[in-house]
Amino acid sequence: MQKYVIKNINRPDPQIISQFAELDVSTVYEAQGKTGLMSHELKPILQNKKICGPAVTAICMAGDNLMIHAAIEVCRPGDVLVITTIGECVAGMIGELIVSALIKRGVQGVVIDSGIRDVAKIRELGFPVWTKAVYSQGTSKTMGGWVNAPAVCGGAQVSPGDLIIADDDGVVVVRKEDLQSSLESSKRRILKEEDTKAKIERGEISVDFYGLRETLKKENVVYYEDESELLHHK
Amino acid sequence: MQKYVIKNINRPDPQIISQFAELDVSTVYEAQGKTGLMSHELKPILQNKKICGPAVTAICMAGDNLMIHAAIEVCRPGDVLVITTIGECVAGMIGELIVSALIKRGVQGVVIDSGIRDVAKIRELGFPVWTKAVYSQGTSKTMGGWVNAPAVCGGAQVSPGDLIIADDDGVVVVRKEDLQSSLESSKRRILKEEDTKAKIERGEISVDFYGLRETLKKENVVYYEDESELLHHK
Amino acid sequence: MQKYVIKNINRPDPQIISQFAELDVSTVYEAQGKTGLMSHELKPILQNKKICGPAVTAICMAGDNLMIHAAIEVCRPGDVLVITTIGECVAGMIGELIVSALIKRGVQGVVIDSGIRDVAKIRELGFPVWTKAVYSQGTSKTMGGWVNAPAVCGGAQVSPGDLIIADDDGVVVVRKEDLQSSLESSKRRILKEEDTKAKIERGEISVDFYGLRETLKKENVVYYEDESELLHHK
Amino acid sequence: MQKYVIKNINRPDPQIISQFAELDVSTVYEAQGKTGLMSHELKPILQNKKICGPAVTAICMAGDNLMIHAAIEVCRPGDVLVITTIGECVAGMIGELIVSALIKRGVQGVVIDSGIRDVAKIRELGFPVWTKAVYSQGTSKTMGGWVNAPAVCGGAQVSPGDLIIADDDGVVVVRKEDLQSSLESSKRRILKEEDTKAKIERGEISVDFYGLRETLKKENVVYYEDESELLHHK
Amino acid sequence: MQKYVIKNINRPDPQIISQFAELDVSTVYEAQGKTGLMSHELKPILQNKKICGPAVTAICMAGDNLMIHAAIEVCRPGDVLVITTIGECVAGMIGELIVSALIKRGVQGVVIDSGIRDVAKIRELGFPVWTKAVYSQGTSKTMGGWVNAPAVCGGAQVSPGDLIIADDDGVVVVRKEDLQSSLESSKRRILKEEDTKAKIERGEISVDFYGLRETLKKENVVYYEDESELLHHK
Amino acid sequence: MQKYVIKNINRPDPQIISQFAELDVSTVYEAQGKTGLMSHELKPILQNKKICGPAVTAICMAGDNLMIHAAIEVCRPGDVLVITTIGECVAGMIGELIVSALIKRGVQGVVIDSGIRDVAKIRELGFPVWTKAVYSQGTSKTMGGWVNAPAVCGGAQVSPGDLIIADDDGVVVVRKEDLQSSLESSKRRILKEEDTKAKIERGEISVDFYGLRETLKKENVVYYEDESELLHHK
Repeated sequence: MQKYVIKNINRPDPQIISQFAELDVSTVYEAQGKTGLMSHELKPILQNKKICGPAVTAICMAGDNLMIHAAIEVCRPGDVLVITTIGECVAGMIGELIVSALIKRGVQGVVIDSGIRDVAKIRELGFPVWTKAVYSQGTSKTMGGWVNAPAVCGGAQVSPGDLIIADDDGVVVVRKEDLQSSLESSKRRILKEEDTKAKIERGEISVDFYGLRETLKKENVVYYEDESELLHHK
Repeated sequence: MQKYVIKNINRPDPQIISQFAELDVSTVYEAQGKTGLMSHELKPILQNKKICGPAVTAICMAGDNLMIHAAIEVCRPGDVLVITTIGECVAGMIGELIVSALIKRGVQGVVIDSGIRDVAKIRELGFPVWTKAVYSQGTSKTMGGWVNAPAVCGGAQVSPGDLIIADDDGVVVVRKEDLQSSLESSKRRILKEEDTKAKIERGEISVDFYGLRETLKKENVVYYEDESELLHHK
Repeated sequence: MQKYVIKNINRPDPQIISQFAELDVSTVYEAQGKTGLMSHELKPILQNKKICGPAVTAICMAGDNLMIHAAIEVCRPGDVLVITTIGECVAGMIGELIVSALIKRGVQGVVIDSGIRDVAKIRELGFPVWTKAVYSQGTSKTMGGWVNAPAVCGGAQVSPGDLIIADDDGVVVVRKEDLQSSLESSKRRILKEEDTKAKIERGEISVDFYGLRETLKKENVVYYEDESELLHHK
Repeated sequence: MQKYVIKNINRPDPQIISQFAELDVSTVYEAQGKTGLMSHELKPILQNKKICGPAVTAICMAGDNLMIHAAIEVCRPGDVLVITTIGECVAGMIGELIVSALIKRGVQGVVIDSGIRDVAKIRELGFPVWTKAVYSQGTSKTMGGWVNAPAVCGGAQVSPGDLIIADDDGVVVVRKEDLQSSLESSKRRILKEEDTKAKIERGEISVDFYGLRETLKKENVVYYEDESELLHHK
Repeated sequence: MQKYVIKNINRPDPQIISQFAELDVSTVYEAQGKTGLMSHELKPILQNKKICGPAVTAICMAGDNLMIHAAIEVCRPGDVLVITTIGECVAGMIGELIVSALIKRGVQGVVIDSGIRDVAKIRELGFPVWTKAVYSQGTSKTMGGWVNAPAVCGGAQVSPGDLIIADDDGVVVVRKEDLQSSLESSKRRILKEEDTKAKIERGEISVDFYGLRETLKKENVVYYEDESELLHHK
Repeated sequence: MQKYVIKNINRPDPQIISQFAELDVSTVYEAQGKTGLMSHELKPILQNKKICGPAVTAICMAGDNLMIHAAIEVCRPGDVLVITTIGECVAGMIGELIVSALIKRGVQGVVIDSGIRDVAKIRELGFPVWTKAVYSQGTSKTMGGWVNAPAVCGGAQVSPGDLIIADDDGVVVVRKEDLQSSLESSKRRILKEEDTKAKIERGEISVDFYGLRETLKKENVVYYEDESELLHHK
């Protein structure tokens, strides 16, 4: 239970990151076997913003943001700061000042399993945050924790250097060791979806092209022309 | 407990629908005796969108969207697809592909007592949805259910062919058998509200024009000039 | 338990109000010792709106808005109407008509520990409201309560004539007797924050300028160059 | 939207009721194709109590219990009173007096999509209630509604005369038209479960007797002897 | 915003307290005009426990229990300690040690708008607590606040020396200045309820003895013999 | 993202387990630096039950319990089965049958980040479970996942073979690598608490023996004899 800050972490190859940056959360989550998704309680404060970058993790005691200050120093351009707390918390753990410092460090965005404040200013700065609450409730700066330890955020495991993708649908984590397989699988999924979109565009019906008529039959779903036919068969 | 799909339903007269399309949710809900309102947990993903059309209902098992696929086929232009689940669910039951298919069928919008995903794309398509959550969590396509059976969505009863009106205030159901009375009653309410607005515009006070001074007296509400008068009377 | 309406209340000096109008909720809340903040469940219906004015309070029975009508009459230009209920409630206690009446009286905005309806129209009118829910559920106009009695709204105490400041972060109450000290303390805080912003702008790091390195040491937070050094020390 | 009270309803055959009384909620819910279950938010106030009887339904306006009083009169021995509200509500809609009246009428228990009060006395009387909240918040007796109209309670449809079964697991509705098929299906399920219990008792393993090894294989679930074997295969 | 501890407060006359001790929460709440009730989220950890005593109030910063320690010293036999926090909190603010200290001081029970821990031991000690959560999450002892300042707990205003009554239904506050009127009104209510119980016992029906038949008529509630009569009238 | 079952895991030394079995959740959580605590939403179904044993983990897809069946086979006497889902879920993932099978395998109890059913029977069997909900909603047995992979349950990280302690206060995880230090630290904490209890027993006051008078002074908390002294100083 030694508290610590790890100053340097392994980050994914920028080329891989830029390929993931083309993808969206739902695609990647599905492609990697429905894993890595954070809770829908972490909502974006800005619409139409997508971020994709390596996780720097900060584990704070509930209501104390000391470790966020410690994390700022080790963040690098392109990083995503993932903040979680020990103990439930919706206090405003970050505000305008911390966000300004993060922007100065080149951080892309924040994912936080707590609350934030100064939301108007943060929106004005165009800085994307996924959070559980907007709440002015203040914090102290006195309790130790961890920077770049393995963490749990929004119910998902995040290790430092994992890839974080976040958009309007939420936040997904790609583990360092799964980058390659997740990317390939995502690309295959995209291709398949393109194909499906084309079918829909041509007016094909999903019960046909997904072969669901058989499933419906197996599940004993009966088709009636109208309500009177149903009543007749009862 | 036979599972089924009813292919053809009775839809309200287009002329009646177009008259309801002028009305808003709160008016219709009040006009029909405070009935038919869905829970406020179903929120719109787009502001300033109103829809008004006949309900096609899909009852799915929680976490499975097979019956939504079955429903697509029976939807017609102008319909509103009302989706509910057996068992509590916030998974992303519909996404870009299903929405594209629904748009292709001319469906106006979706009301869903579960979650959705690909929300950025759906907003871009301008397709209105009322939902409990935005959540990438995926679904299977394997479990039977019902299309166009009487359903419960957001705590309200919906029968296929009932009229659904949804706007920024939420969602209301007008039962087929109440269309005429609900419409007339709504129009009367609108007239009364116009009249009230005019009074307000002229600077009249609601305690006067609603005759509430008597109610306040009957409820033993006393008027004091200021706090000192209150203290004096204690 | 006498129910009453107090017609005239003491309002803060306009000059003081105009100085508070420059400040934001988080600053004032912190400056007055982390007091006076309402729950984050009261959310604004409009972004980028800030209000600052004296509180007129209305205490209603849950699901009844009689006392809101009584309150309209005693509101003056620049006031903020603070509405709370006895008993939990998310019904739509105010809608377009009441808002029109409040605008007519010059009221700046509403803070309500319940729900509202006609939200599209209220947004169109540009009238700011902080509320727990958007919900058409209607109310009666039959039950007595209080106007300008001391109230609890969003968990915070509000006396008539207290100053209400509300923005995207939420709502804070400045008690009449704390106006001067809260204002001075807020201004000092602003100056300090300006100074901090300048430091950040120059690239200084918060663990340095806040003197947190010592706190981190006292909390036994150890720095490692990288993960291998951590593993080595275990 | 005519408000009404129906004085006499068709109740299921007492012989069928007594057979259902042997069954539990989870069994019946599963047996009838996972339908008819109310939300888990309706919790019992007494442990180890099971009730089984015909539904008398009362639909009240939120915060008003006039229709509960109207319902008392039409209840008969063995009935279950199912109370729901129009509009969300957790007020204490029933207390000691109403429960005493219901006991006097021979009512078995209450299922209520709102709150109750006097819970200590109701427990003392041994009267089972499934409710969303214990809350003293009072109600009025002034607003009309329905007795023995089709209702929605805890998200499930209930028609007057449907069979209600409630136990520690929650509440399930058996529709009048499904009584026979639901009963037979439940009995078959019980037999199957007895058989499964015997297998478990003999030490058989469910992945074997349910034939799940094949499913696991189809789902690409691999077995490793221990963690080192896993690491070896990565 | 001076933080303080007031050492001596005015407590109600013991004779009045002992009369209130005969009453229950719902009765007193109703008798004093439906006021003073705390939220139903504050639930008892022990069934069948009722307490009635003067409030000592402690206002803590969220996650810090320094002021509870300060409060212990000023508590006297028969007191009820009412704890609230500035900022939302469910941490375990009190546990076995604090409860032991409170028992030593003769305190009757605790009402806390946060969480507690060591609940098994506290139950074993038979010490009644009304709380929002059981949660081990720890607290610090470093932040100043108030003892015996006017407070908001569970949404209700509590001044030091107000009478707190708590039972299985929840918690109600009787303000010092309302003790006499609330007591008399409660006694009248009890008498009326005795009378009503006797009527119910004799088999009288509430729609009769409350005179509700007229209300039902005024609300246009129609009586039908059975469903067929309803269908006939549609 | 290979799905797998690990058949054999390293379990803590039985001697260490039996020493932890003397400790309670709050003590261990505090002793290991406020880490390892699960959310308070996981509540015990039985009071006064404590369990302490090695974790076998099962990660299921939401609404599917295939991997629980796979887990049964690898459980050993004394184990605690920790079940979590991918995607939010409150369905009844385990019931009487699975519990019977677990008892047959000697499993001590279950910690589940979802729901359960057959709660009356499970209580009757005296089998302790910590769960988010009691809900009959059924599950499928068709989707692959993991047994004995590192998991997140109730917001806490659990690796197979970690020690789980659960009592009325909730659930705490002791990581395999922290067993020794956590045990020693817990014992020290117990001794300290014994000492504190003795002080309380002797009538000493915590503001004295914790040295909090200085903290109170540093926090500018002023002591007043009574309210009049406060008013005088304002």
